[in-house]
Amino acid sequence: MAGRTYLYAQSGGVTPVINATAAALIRAARASGDRVLAARDGILGVLEERLIDTDRLSDRDLVAIGHTPGGVFGSCRYKLKGMEDNRREYERLIDVFRAHQVDCFFYNGGNDSADTALKVSRLGESMDYPIQCIGVPKTIDNDLAVTDNCPGFGSVAKYVAVSILEASLDVMSMASTSTKVFILEVMGRHAGWIAAAGGLAARAPGDPPQIILFPEIPFDQQRFCAAVRQSVEQNGYCSVVVSEGLRNPEGEFVAAAASRDAFGHHQLGGVAPAVADIVKRELGYKYHWAVSDYLQRSARHIASATDVEQAEAVGEAAVAMAQAGQSGVMPVIRRISDQPYQWEIATAELDQIANHEKKMPREYITEDGFGITEPARRYLAPLIRGENFPPFDEDGLPQYLRPELVEIETRLPAFRV
Amino acid sequence: MAGRTYLYAQSGGVTPVINATAAALIRAARASGDRVLAARDGILGVLEERLIDTDRLSDRDLVAIGHTPGGVFGSCRYKLKGMEDNRREYERLIDVFRAHQVDCFFYNGGNDSADTALKVSRLGESMDYPIQCIGVPKTIDNDLAVTDNCPGFGSVAKYVAVSILEASLDVMSMASTSTKVFILEVMGRHAGWIAAAGGLAARAPGDPPQIILFPEIPFDQQRFCAAVRQSVEQNGYCSVVVSEGLRNPEGEFVAAAASRDAFGHHQLGGVAPAVADIVKRELGYKYHWAVSDYLQRSARHIASATDVEQAEAVGEAAVAMAQAGQSGVMPVIRRISDQPYQWEIATAELDQIANHEKKMPREYITEDGFGITEPARRYLAPLIRGENFPPFDEDGLPQYLRPELVEIETRLPAFRV
Repeated sequence: MAGRTYLYAQSGGVTPVINATAAALIRAARASGDRVLAARDGILGVLEERLIDTDRLSDRDLVAIGHTPGGVFGSCRYKLKGMEDNRREYERLIDVFRAHQVDCFFYNGGNDSADTALKVSRLGESMDYPIQCIGVPKTIDNDLAVTDNCPGFGSVAKYVAVSILEASLDVMSMASTSTKVFILEVMGRHAGWIAAAGGLAARAPGDPPQIILFPEIPFDQQRFCAAVRQSVEQNGYCSVVVSEGLRNPEGEFVAAAASRDAFGHHQLGGVAPAVADIVKRELGYKYHWAVSDYLQRSARHIASATDVEQAEAVGEAAVAMAQAGQSGVMPVIRRISDQPYQWEIATAELDQIANHEKKMPREYITEDGFGITEPARRYLAPLIRGENFPPFDEDGLPQYLRPELVEIETRLPAFRV
Repeated sequence: MAGRTYLYAQSGGVTPVINATAAALIRAARASGDRVLAARDGILGVLEERLIDTDRLSDRDLVAIGHTPGGVFGSCRYKLKGMEDNRREYERLIDVFRAHQVDCFFYNGGNDSADTALKVSRLGESMDYPIQCIGVPKTIDNDLAVTDNCPGFGSVAKYVAVSILEASLDVMSMASTSTKVFILEVMGRHAGWIAAAGGLAARAPGDPPQIILFPEIPFDQQRFCAAVRQSVEQNGYCSVVVSEGLRNPEGEFVAAAASRDAFGHHQLGGVAPAVADIVKRELGYKYHWAVSDYLQRSARHIASATDVEQAEAVGEAAVAMAQAGQSGVMPVIRRISDQPYQWEIATAELDQIANHEKKMPREYITEDGFGITEPARRYLAPLIRGENFPPFDEDGLPQYLRPELVEIETRLPAFRV
């Protein structure tokens, strides 16, 4: 089976460890004498036949890529339309696979990518080019179905827990005369997984963050203000984590401005200043707010060792599945036990994952809607364990690599997306 | 000289390493058989006679405090008024020193604190309680006069350089179809030192951040938009660091909302969304923005080793100065050479520091106003060198200590601030 050709593409929002998956996948293929092409800018690079021969990357490059945040080959937000409306693009994918004799397509992404991979694998058969398609999981939002957790999430969770702990130590030292309320906005879209991770910083009653605002719990301004006041009276300050996807009881985003991205999702941001304004108006407390935005999902310097290990494991497992002739599947993480935390890689069918969204169970949120429960803690805690610092150079900066990427010659006529 | 009593207080905004100074100072005093009282909540705790006996902290506690962000004894934003308007508070300070037989008062802060320490040292003589006063430098803004740099700044500088590097790797992987402009807002008030530190991430032409917006350079919207467009056309994306203190040509803050803090300074925040809005309106590019706010000044997990070393050195030197009978002085950092970076602790007079502000030299900013020059790089680079990660616990969180602080019995009637 040696000498096979794979095509790897990254999809959607990147994570601190998506390159760990890429590097592990390429390394595993290389070890078996297989070859990996990588698409520039995700599925767009496949359609446009902009392909990198990863054989030009040295083993040392691969190590450095493995601890570099962002998507080393580029990613994209581009969802293929349904096959009925857009057979042309699907057929082009098969044409590209055929032109480069690709045996297996690895699509490293979330729900949308699983859907694309599934459709492509089915089309191949009917077009007489039976391409294997394997999804490789990735999303900071942790909202993929079937898998116990998603590579990328653990590192963002660690960043959020560490950051709210640190900022809370700051605000508690200033609270006597200055800032009394600190608000940190985090990502996660419609799922509160990332916000919940902030709760890992609170290990004893009264610990910060005293309030988490989840997208799953409609925002009740009056109850929120009462909780802030109570914390300030009891602790001298109040530390708040708020999810970008927070909605009011009418179902509208609390964030002032919402525009739409290429997937038709709302692009969120700016809920922290909106909540801060409520604190000032209703309670008169001095506040500070932070919006971590891309910082949280690129903070490879504070990656979770567990997350890095799992990101590598799904990359390696994807190659093994390809070599075993599997298609329409995804390597997922199956939890064996919480304590000690044990996990293994299992195989999931893409049609169980495509276009599903894993919401956070209501029992992970405390009854008052402002905190996480013990089951949530048991689930989340192992995912941020262990540190995996990147090497730093003599200038005091992480040794991140932006390798020169040379595209191979095209074999097909140009294609307009 | 053994058996002396010192009083230590933290002032103003805290830093990731102010506790490193506190721990080193207490350790140095302890090693000489001297005793350190610490005021709760800075100068307020002195006025209100809320004092901690640091002898109750174990050596192990001190090690943990030394790598914990925030101000372990509490800080405050409270500037004593001029002596003419407010002799009462100054006399109260002397009363408290006298009641607890304090030989030397260490005030760990910035410009304002140097001013207070100076006034108190002069008043003591006239009140026949000749208290020694020693300022200990601290400020993330790096705007203290005389000292080559300020403890606290190097770690924030490292956080900003690492963060903009990481977020830029993220945006460059998404730029083909999604976000093209990323904007990171940083602190620094009227001085561009922290914003300049972002420039350390750019080591080759075209590297991110492509644009830095300094408070020293009036914001020219048209030139800014042209620079953003040029970077997007050349690099595919544009990465921007903007200082909270950015002003328009009329001298007004670009940040939408500005309120005033207890020192009469503007409280800033929210310039990133304002700049993002310009990008969207004038150029139509998709953008993301982050406001790091307290995260940057509490991020002990990514502290600069140089900064930690200097923070400890000023604490130790303060004790040595006290033991040498000095007063009205501050230990400062004197740079001996850039390459190799060498520094030593020198002694500065408080009246050279009080109420001065060190602006960034114009020659540290490139002619176009959007970047840092080689001299700036030579100055800044050594300050972020080296890593000093805190120890992490088995839960994957830094081992930060919030010790129980027991106040000693008061010896004076209550005092109302």
